[in-house]
Amino acid sequence: MARPDMPVNVAEKLSKVTEYWSPKTILEANGYEMKAVKVKGEFVWHDHPEGDELFIVVKGELTIDLRDRQSVTLGAGDMFVVPRGVQHRPVAPEECEVLIMDAAGVVNTGGVASELTAQDEWI
Amino acid sequence: MARPDMPVNVAEKLSKVTEYWSPKTILEANGYEMKAVKVKGEFVWHDHPEGDELFIVVKGELTIDLRDRQSVTLGAGDMFVVPRGVQHRPVAPEECEVLIMDAAGVVNTGGVASELTAQDEWI
Repeated sequence: MARPDMPVNVAEKLSKVTEYWSPKTILEANGYEMKAVKVKGEFVWHDHPEGDELFIVVKGELTIDLRDRQSVTLGAGDMFVVPRGVQHRPVAPEECEVLIMDAAGVVNTGGVASELTAQDEWI
Repeated sequence: MARPDMPVNVAEKLSKVTEYWSPKTILEANGYEMKAVKVKGEFVWHDHPEGDELFIVVKGELTIDLRDRQSVTLGAGDMFVVPRGVQHRPVAPEECEVLIMDAAGVVNTGGVASELTAQDEWI
């Protein structure tokens, strides 16, 4: 899909996300894609050798476990960058709405094949 | 400044911004910087040949006039990408809080020297 030439509303896009752990692309800039995702529960440990991954929590609370350092917990309005290649595992006890930005084509589970591996899809 | 290894809270960062049109960097990912800025009034026409520029409105309303196409107006929770090289002019009749993401080192007024040209600064 081409980049939208109209403003994109985050809440409106998130309202269309019906599955957990299934990020949907909402815009693209400089080869990086912003994705809207709802999460609940525990994701798989993985990393992204292609680049850093930006998390922005819109609603709820997200903990990101990091293999080699202290976990971080993000509330609404918090942002965090998981550096390139750092093993991480997002965990959300309750439903949480998140924006994720990473390089176009990055797979949500990194190099880990999982039933949680999602297809690249615009919403 | 090094990239923070703790979550960054958008509202907290914006509360530290005291000047209009003076974006402050709050995080970096893949060589792109997220900046918090308060705006009011009319900015200068300019463009960024280095890359696309992502706008995210946190509070208030921002119109982005575009030289070669229809203006867009963003409310809270709206995002928009001004493509690389497209002349644009942000306008906000009332105070508006915005996040802007573009390549590290990009100057807010592009190639236009202006009293509104800001220094690259972390907050």
